[in-house]
Amino acid sequence: MYEWIKIKDISEHEGEKITLKGWLYNKRSSGKIHFLQVRDGTGFIQCVMVKSNDNGNKFEEVDKLRQESTVIVKGSVRKDKRAPSGYEVEVEDVDILFNPSEPYPISKKSHGVDFLMKHRHLWLRSRRQFHIMRIRNEVIKAIRDYLYDKGFLLIDSPILTGSIGESTSTLFQLDYFDLGKAYLSQTGQLYLEAAALAYGNVFCFGPTFRAEKSKTRRHLTEFWMIEAEMVFCDSECNMRFQEELISYVIQRIMERNTADLEALGRDTTVLENTKVPFYRISYDEAITLLQKKSFDIKWGDDIGGDEETAISIEFDKPVMVYNYPKKAKAFYMQPHPEREDVVLCDDMLAPEGYGEIIGGSQRIDDFDTLLKSIRDNGLSEDAYQWYLDLRKWGSVIHSGFGLGIERTTAWICGLEHIREAIPFARTIYRIYP
Amino acid sequence: MYEWIKIKDISEHEGEKITLKGWLYNKRSSGKIHFLQVRDGTGFIQCVMVKSNDNGNKFEEVDKLRQESTVIVKGSVRKDKRAPSGYEVEVEDVDILFNPSEPYPISKKSHGVDFLMKHRHLWLRSRRQFHIMRIRNEVIKAIRDYLYDKGFLLIDSPILTGSIGESTSTLFQLDYFDLGKAYLSQTGQLYLEAAALAYGNVFCFGPTFRAEKSKTRRHLTEFWMIEAEMVFCDSECNMRFQEELISYVIQRIMERNTADLEALGRDTTVLENTKVPFYRISYDEAITLLQKKSFDIKWGDDIGGDEETAISIEFDKPVMVYNYPKKAKAFYMQPHPEREDVVLCDDMLAPEGYGEIIGGSQRIDDFDTLLKSIRDNGLSEDAYQWYLDLRKWGSVIHSGFGLGIERTTAWICGLEHIREAIPFARTIYRIYP
Repeated sequence: MYEWIKIKDISEHEGEKITLKGWLYNKRSSGKIHFLQVRDGTGFIQCVMVKSNDNGNKFEEVDKLRQESTVIVKGSVRKDKRAPSGYEVEVEDVDILFNPSEPYPISKKSHGVDFLMKHRHLWLRSRRQFHIMRIRNEVIKAIRDYLYDKGFLLIDSPILTGSIGESTSTLFQLDYFDLGKAYLSQTGQLYLEAAALAYGNVFCFGPTFRAEKSKTRRHLTEFWMIEAEMVFCDSECNMRFQEELISYVIQRIMERNTADLEALGRDTTVLENTKVPFYRISYDEAITLLQKKSFDIKWGDDIGGDEETAISIEFDKPVMVYNYPKKAKAFYMQPHPEREDVVLCDDMLAPEGYGEIIGGSQRIDDFDTLLKSIRDNGLSEDAYQWYLDLRKWGSVIHSGFGLGIERTTAWICGLEHIREAIPFARTIYRIYP
Repeated sequence: MYEWIKIKDISEHEGEKITLKGWLYNKRSSGKIHFLQVRDGTGFIQCVMVKSNDNGNKFEEVDKLRQESTVIVKGSVRKDKRAPSGYEVEVEDVDILFNPSEPYPISKKSHGVDFLMKHRHLWLRSRRQFHIMRIRNEVIKAIRDYLYDKGFLLIDSPILTGSIGESTSTLFQLDYFDLGKAYLSQTGQLYLEAAALAYGNVFCFGPTFRAEKSKTRRHLTEFWMIEAEMVFCDSECNMRFQEELISYVIQRIMERNTADLEALGRDTTVLENTKVPFYRISYDEAITLLQKKSFDIKWGDDIGGDEETAISIEFDKPVMVYNYPKKAKAFYMQPHPEREDVVLCDDMLAPEGYGEIIGGSQRIDDFDTLLKSIRDNGLSEDAYQWYLDLRKWGSVIHSGFGLGIERTTAWICGLEHIREAIPFARTIYRIYP
């Protein structure tokens, strides 16, 4: 009797007397009935308190409860077709553990983004954020499950590093004891390559940092990335793997997070369609497409955010743009065997205008080619000595990719801005809370 | 015929003709037979190449292979009781993809630690490191599975932060655009508390930083921590949860990583014994114990690494030391209801001298008590405004803990130094590779 259950499991307790522990999310009252929206972190449910059934004589006290009161509700579960979850609780007693002395700052009226971000620690309690965080959780879980199932080993790459993976201009730096400057990692890839030559197929999952002064809806200064690295795997093998992974993740979210997607009002037509094979166009083709669309872009330029949007809205599932010009990409990418100015790589663009969610490439496996590329890019040979070593012993064709968790989550949820896809966003204007 | 298989699956292919893709780990030769130790990242296996069975006429070429050559071996799997894995491969052909032009720097003769750490990118390929990384991988996987199974939601806490969780003296700091200084997170706990009040039971898993000038075998400047936070859960509930989690992890490693533990020469008596309930002693009792052992320690002092060792060797499974003096612990811990100078917390010490692997506590849930503690500790009220808000709306009893992945892995593997328990260790003297 009155067993403590979680709201997510309510359907298993129809007709039973149960206890809920949680918070008052909303309240409507008539003279003789309170309609209490209660949340417990696993869901939301309507609890109906009828004055004449109130065993604990709490009806008046409950009337005074503010939003985000902490309560223990005892009552019976009954089916109700009109309720969003299909159930409601007929309240018999309420224990009031805490009633705020001030009104809750987030009301139902619409707030500005800045206000909400400043109150992110509270905003997370809102229904919309609840559904987004559940999808984020499942995206990460799905990717891990997929990789583990394929025999990948988790190898956490370091965050503090002297070896720089991407652009040198966008690094956070700090003083590291007597060893000079250290940088916050922009990618775990170089370390993953070392691990791949040791353990075959490996992945890492961690925070990644870009000190970019970007203010777009796609940029965070701190974001989470899953990176994978595979040996005896060329660019084609790499692209096939990425397709299959994304296809798996999307179909799993469709299966397991149906209610979350629905609550977010997500039109899932394109998600349903996201099955292998995806579209593929070469960089050359992408440039032609963009020029047709009157973009001021020429062969050799990088493809920016607006251009990605323009490409991706042409497709009804993800499209992979492959084989970019060498000068537009990072130093470690394998040159095309027949075109010296092109590298074997791919960016996967999510449809519906979302743009890049994955960047991948085959890595240079020849010592001399890599050394030349390090020199051509003006990087320090000393700092990359260990990375060069990987081409001295056990060198092999290998490829990998990095998948941005927030961009992927934002696309799946249909969010306008990436900041809602991470619990506590960091942007150039925000490091609080 | 000659299907590409992984060494870990070799037992499923007895009598079959298979392909292995990997690296030459070791080689012995008589005039007519090569004994090749091959590794493919999932395991090690002996491949026997008899000159007269050599279909590809590679016998002479194979003779010239250096360690860490990249090879594709074709042959038949046969049972062999003498082989460590129980199987070996009778070689029919070898494709040589890469033969190093220099001898491999890590030889069988013993190397100094500094040399090995400098060559960590290669050292990872050694058999001992292979087994350690597999156990680390499984420790993390086991913890995640356990938490997911209990309905916890993953909420990644930010790394760049203005709010400081632990000691202010051991922070890495950096310039954050126009917002002044940012710090590298020492704990995700404060953010997890916000998430717990939103989603019930939550966890995070990420890198954590301490700019400590510690040179002990237990300290890294960058380490990985799983933190969990639970609502409607007091200190007792918290301790019980920690016991059950560790018990689960250890028993699962015993089951799934038997071969790894054996290869590391780990005596598993104590691990076998690590089942609920663990031992518990109060801080008061711990001080008495230490004084009996002639430690120069008095009530009120923190318990350091040497003291932890001295306590933990008294027990044949983990021991939890609970309720420390307030002044020895962090500002957010809930005071004991009957003793104002003591807080509701616990440190779990691994046996066999390993010391602390978990630190946990019940958190202050009263606004005024927390505000006073923030002031008493000289912390900025402004920076903690959002953290104080959690006691203004929806406040509730809640508790949580942080578990150090490297310390736990070091204990399970029986390592002397924590640096082997992480792929790329960061210490005060090391940020390379």
